[in-house]
Formats: sequence, C-alpha cells, structure tokens
Amino acid sequence: MISEKMKALVSNNSVIRQMFEEGQQMAAKYGSENVYDFSLGNPNIPAPPKVKETIISLLEKEDPTVLHGYMNNAGFPDVRRKVADSLNRRFGTFFTENNIMMTVGAAEGLNCALKALINPGDEVLTFAPYFVEYRNYVANFDGHLTAVDPDTTTFQPDFAKFESAVNDRTKAVIINNPNNPTGVIYTEETIKKLAEILEKKQKEYGTDIFIIADEPYRELVYTGAEVPYVTKYYANTIVCYSYSKTLSLPGERIGYLVVPSEAADAEDLFTAVTIANRVIGCVNAPSLFQKVIGECLEEKADINFYAKNRELLYKSLDEYGFECIKPEGAFYMFVKTPTEDDIEFVNEAKNEHILVVPGTSFGCKGYVRIAYCVAYETIENSLAGFKRLAERYGLTK
Amino acid sequence: MISEKMKALVSNNSVIRQMFEEGQQMAAKYGSENVYDFSLGNPNIPAPPKVKETIISLLEKEDPTVLHGYMNNAGFPDVRRKVADSLNRRFGTFFTENNIMMTVGAAEGLNCALKALINPGDEVLTFAPYFVEYRNYVANFDGHLTAVDPDTTTFQPDFAKFESAVNDRTKAVIINNPNNPTGVIYTEETIKKLAEILEKKQKEYGTDIFIIADEPYRELVYTGAEVPYVTKYYANTIVCYSYSKTLSLPGERIGYLVVPSEAADAEDLFTAVTIANRVIGCVNAPSLFQKVIGECLEEKADINFYAKNRELLYKSLDEYGFECIKPEGAFYMFVKTPTEDDIEFVNEAKNEHILVVPGTSFGCKGYVRIAYCVAYETIENSLAGFKRLAERYGLTK
Repeated sequence: MISEKMKALVSNNSVIRQMFEEGQQMAAKYGSENVYDFSLGNPNIPAPPKVKETIISLLEKEDPTVLHGYMNNAGFPDVRRKVADSLNRRFGTFFTENNIMMTVGAAEGLNCALKALINPGDEVLTFAPYFVEYRNYVANFDGHLTAVDPDTTTFQPDFAKFESAVNDRTKAVIINNPNNPTGVIYTEETIKKLAEILEKKQKEYGTDIFIIADEPYRELVYTGAEVPYVTKYYANTIVCYSYSKTLSLPGERIGYLVVPSEAADAEDLFTAVTIANRVIGCVNAPSLFQKVIGECLEEKADINFYAKNRELLYKSLDEYGFECIKPEGAFYMFVKTPTEDDIEFVNEAKNEHILVVPGTSFGCKGYVRIAYCVAYETIENSLAGFKRLAERYGLTK
Repeated sequence: MISEKMKALVSNNSVIRQMFEEGQQMAAKYGSENVYDFSLGNPNIPAPPKVKETIISLLEKEDPTVLHGYMNNAGFPDVRRKVADSLNRRFGTFFTENNIMMTVGAAEGLNCALKALINPGDEVLTFAPYFVEYRNYVANFDGHLTAVDPDTTTFQPDFAKFESAVNDRTKAVIINNPNNPTGVIYTEETIKKLAEILEKKQKEYGTDIFIIADEPYRELVYTGAEVPYVTKYYANTIVCYSYSKTLSLPGERIGYLVVPSEAADAEDLFTAVTIANRVIGCVNAPSLFQKVIGECLEEKADINFYAKNRELLYKSLDEYGFECIKPEGAFYMFVKTPTEDDIEFVNEAKNEHILVVPGTSFGCKGYVRIAYCVAYETIENSLAGFKRLAERYGLTK
C-alpha cells in the first residue's frame, strides 16, 4: 500500500528506531546519567541570549499580521538583504537580496537546489564519509548519488578518484565543509583544485556541473582554519546554510540558500529554487525566525564549550590507543574502530552504555562517529568505558 | 540547465510574478489605499493575544536547548498528545500521539501523505475548482492529478462523474473542506456518499484508496454548518491541518497530519509520513510553534471580522447582478464572470484597481476568486469599482 520508494526507507527505519528505543530503554534501566549518548548532532549549548531578547522585542513592536504572515516565497526582502550584507562583509562577496532565499534549514535548501537541477538519471557526487540523508535527497528527484572513496589518511578529497568519477551525467557535487562526520576542513587549496577539475570537465562535456556547498558547521571552527567561501572560487555554486548549529536552533528549521549571480542561468535558477520552496510544500521559511536571524547575524553560540569537549575526548581516546584525526571543525570525531566490523564495535560500546553511530551509515566502514555536542560530564563519565573498550581490543598508544 | 520538471513552472511563474509586480506597481502609482487586492489568502486578523503570551512564557520557563532543539521527526510527543485530546474532545475520535504528526503547515502535510502513498503513474483525484498547487504536489511524486468537473449549481461534488473517474490506479482523493476557492462546505451526506463510492471501488479493484482531507479552513465557518470529521466515515483517511488561518500564523508554517489507526497499514503509514517529513528536508515542524500550538488549542482568530466582510461583499455583488453562491466557510467568494473569458474580466477589474484570481487557475473557467481576508474598508472602497464592472457588462439583479 505504501509507495515503493518509501518501503525500503520504512523497513530500514525500524532498525534505527530499534537503536533509538534501545537507548531510551538503557536510560530508563541504568539512569540517563549512566548512558553516554553520542549518537545525535543536537547542540547542547543554549541559543545566545539575544535570540530570546529579539523574539520578545519583535512581538512587542511588529504588526502580528506581518510578523506571522506570508511574504515572498524567497523570504522577507529586508532579512535577505541583511544576510547578503553580512556575507559580503565577512567574505568579500557581492550578494544582494536577489541572491538569498531563506529556507527551512539547510536540508530543505539542499532539496530546493536538487529539485531545481536534477533530472531523473542525473548523477550527484559526494565524498565518503558523507551525511547519510544526501542519498535520500538525491533519490527524491530520481538522481543517483555516487560517493567518492576517501583518502583515509587525511579525509581530504581524493582528487584522482574524484576526477575519474565525474562524467557527462554529473549535475552536481555536494561538499560538506566543515565535514560531518570527520570534522575535517577543506582548505582553499582543496576548493581551488576541485574547482579546476570541474571547470575542465564542464568544458570537456559542455555541461554545467554545480557545487552544492552544505555549510551548517561553517562557524564551528577550533583551530583558526579558514573555511573558504566556495562562490569565490567557482561560479556554478549553490550554498546551503543553517542556523541549527551556529545559533543552536536546530528545531526551528531556519537557514538560507545562496545562488550567486555568476552561476549559469542565475536568475532562472533563483526563480526555480523559490518555486521549489513553495512546491515542496514549505511555502516559506518560518517568518518569526527569519526576522530573528535579521537581528542576530553577529551572534554565535559559545563554541568554547565544544572546544573543551573536543580536547578532553581527543586526548583521552588518543591515550587509550584509538586512531583518529583531530577534528578542526563541526562537533564530531570520526574514530577508527579496532575491528573492521564497525557494527560489532557499536554493539560492544553499548555494553559500556556508550552510543555511537557506525561509519557504515556514512558510507565508510571501519569507523564510528562520536557527536561531542554533549555535557562535559557525559564525556568525563564515558572515558572509563572507552578505556575498557580499548583494552578489550588490545589497543595501546 | 534547470531540471525539466522545473522549466515549465519557471516560465509559468513569470506570468504570476508579472501580475504580482503589476499589483505592486499599481500600489506605487495610485497609493496602496486605492488598490483593492483580493488575490491572496493572507489573513489580516492578528493572531489571538494568547499566542504572544505563550511565546514569552515558553521563552521564560523552558530550557532553550529543548525549546529550539531537535525532537522526534513526528514532533514533541506532549504536543501531539494535546492535539489528539483536543480532536477527541471536539469530534468524538480516539486518537493518541501515535496518530498525530506535526508538520510545516498543511502543504507539507499533503506532500508527506503523497510521498508515502504515490507511485509513478498513480492517479489522484480532486474536485474542480481546486487549489492549484495540488497539481504540483502530485507531480512531485510523478502521480497524475485528475480534477472531477464541478456541479456549478451547488459546487458540491458530482457523484456520478466522481464514480466514473475512479479507476484501478486511483490511489487518493484530495478534498478541501471548507473549500478554497468556493467557500462551500461538504455536508455529512456528501462525505458519507463519497465514502460509500470509495468503499465499493476499493472492493471492486482490491486496492486501498485514500481520502486526503485538506482542512486549513475547518474553523472558519459562518453559518453554524458542521464540517464532518472524515476519519469517522472512512478508514483510509489522512487529515492535513494548518494553523495558518485559524490562528492567523500562515508565515510560521505550523500544522499537523492525522493517520487514524483504522487506516490500512496504519503503523507503517505513520512511519512513512514521519520519514517523509525528514527526507523532504523539513526534518520536523518548527519547534517553538509546536509548543505554542500545545498551549493554544482552544484559541481562534476573531472570525467575526471575516463574517462582516462576507456579508457586505456578498450583499453588494448580489445587488449589482453578480452570480455567486454565498460562502459558508473559508474566506473566499467564487463569482461567475459575466463573460466566459475570466482572464478578460480579471484585466477589466484591474482597470478598477481590483485584483482577483481567474477561475482558470483553479481548473474552473468563467469564475474569479475574491479573497475577502482584507480590511473592511478595502471592501467598502472597492464596491464602486465592482458596480461599474457590473454596469459595463450589462448585469442587473
């Protein structure tokens, strides 16, 4: 009775749900303070106080039929202008409100971009390990997602593999910078090299190949590393941004999408994503939070908190003998499992009341993702368990 | 470069945008108080004061990482329970939180329902005149929308035409009650008759045929007429609701979807719509407004305001000789144009600075839709123009 496309997702979902329920059962059985749940990217830093202040001030001074009302499907023009100005100030770009569409988070931005670009059978590339939902988003439009295997020494893109993966049906390349699940940042050199390859391939095939830059973690950087702004290096770029992490507002579903004027058919493309916003069923990004964003562009949740977590977790895991690249951004650590079978390791970790996600879920077997956007005490209290796991597998520094 | 599916929408959109821009140009030229814009269903009654009070109180007392955080893709369980309880109280149903998914408005609810049900080539029926976006929503999943021609004496469904339109590929029937654009309410008799036909057809073909009840106008009723709750008459029903009109929150994108336990494969279907919510890119309904809804279930924008508009507009148009069924619900009037060519009439109306939408846009030529969710003065000031239009076409009472 359920549609064919959904059937596989439904049966697969029950596995994930089982894990989720298991976690809840564990919390009920052992007390939630004795279960170390590193499975979800749900920020535990509160939104900056200015978010609350702004909401209250908007409620006091704005006409409610405007504040909660319909606007252009692309969003309030004044908010889009402020977002454009902020990007221009920070990255030396030249956007106007006509380059910015407010979205229901980055996930809906990605779907609008894909709906605007993808014909059935088109190919979309990404780099493993990758956010598992990319595959479902691309399948929404009957495209095919191909993941380019990682260079596991650095988790930077493997350019040779990438170049040979691009073909005449390649319509888009999704990059996620800083990266979920590895925490790696793609440098300016990397972006330049990707752009160079794509320029060459566009010429070779006479096609347009878009980079879709998924950037919810752009502001979560611990090392002073620069996260290059992709539109400056490659014209056919669509940027998808979200305030879920920067402002700790994941449940509010607020972000934006950038179509630079240099992109092919930029004006039609902007019209297309705006229509997609409506036709997907979102109509527009939530109106109150659009206005909140307009007033909170300089705000940022206090990421020192994540930085502290990152230090403790990395230092400890390294000490116990786990192999891992020290993340430069986002709030994930991607740790090599001492056995090839990451699912087995995930189950072993559960015995220590530690919940982590297998690399298999990100197209990269033999690793687990640890989301360290949790209380510092959760990390402290989990360490004995991680140590026992290391010992059980005979790891040493 | 843009995907084939979007190309037609983009070129068609420029026509609509042209109209929109024309309206803005008219407002700039003649003053917005001299332009009578009846084109949009954007409520001009403010949200009830309790909405504002609730937001402030939630900001004061709730943990921001919960209030603005991720939850189950179906929504906060406590809010879903309150919605279920409210429905049960008002309609004698027996829902629990496991029948309710919070959505990004009714439009996203419809998309989740269709994604869960429709295979490419499946047929979806609706009754003309109908909300134009239904066609785009069904096309998102490569289904085909067929509109059953109206009985224009009553704008109630034509059962004979409906019965002959149902076939073995019919997967769903979208009904919109109270109706946009006619303002008509489908009675209990009508719903019973539709259910009877569908039960028969399900048996005949050995299929499941769903009613998708799109009900954003459920609470906007002027005559004391009952709007039957469809799940009580037909098991294979999905209800899509929105607070856009009831609480005047169209920009906030908040609503819910109901899958009754009696529906075929109800549990899997609920899982499917929940996954659809995530995979479409919405992830979840906006979190703060979910909590607001939980506290404002007994609230309603003051619809006396629309009732007053409806009286004045109907009385006046009737007096000038226009033909129209007096609407029982919603905030639209569907008026027969004195010429078959509704586009011509729309253009003539523009000369009077009156903006209305042609029936052609709703699959019903020879009519225009007037959205009377505007200031009372807008209606008062537009009447001279409507009168001149009637005279120009030689209408008399």
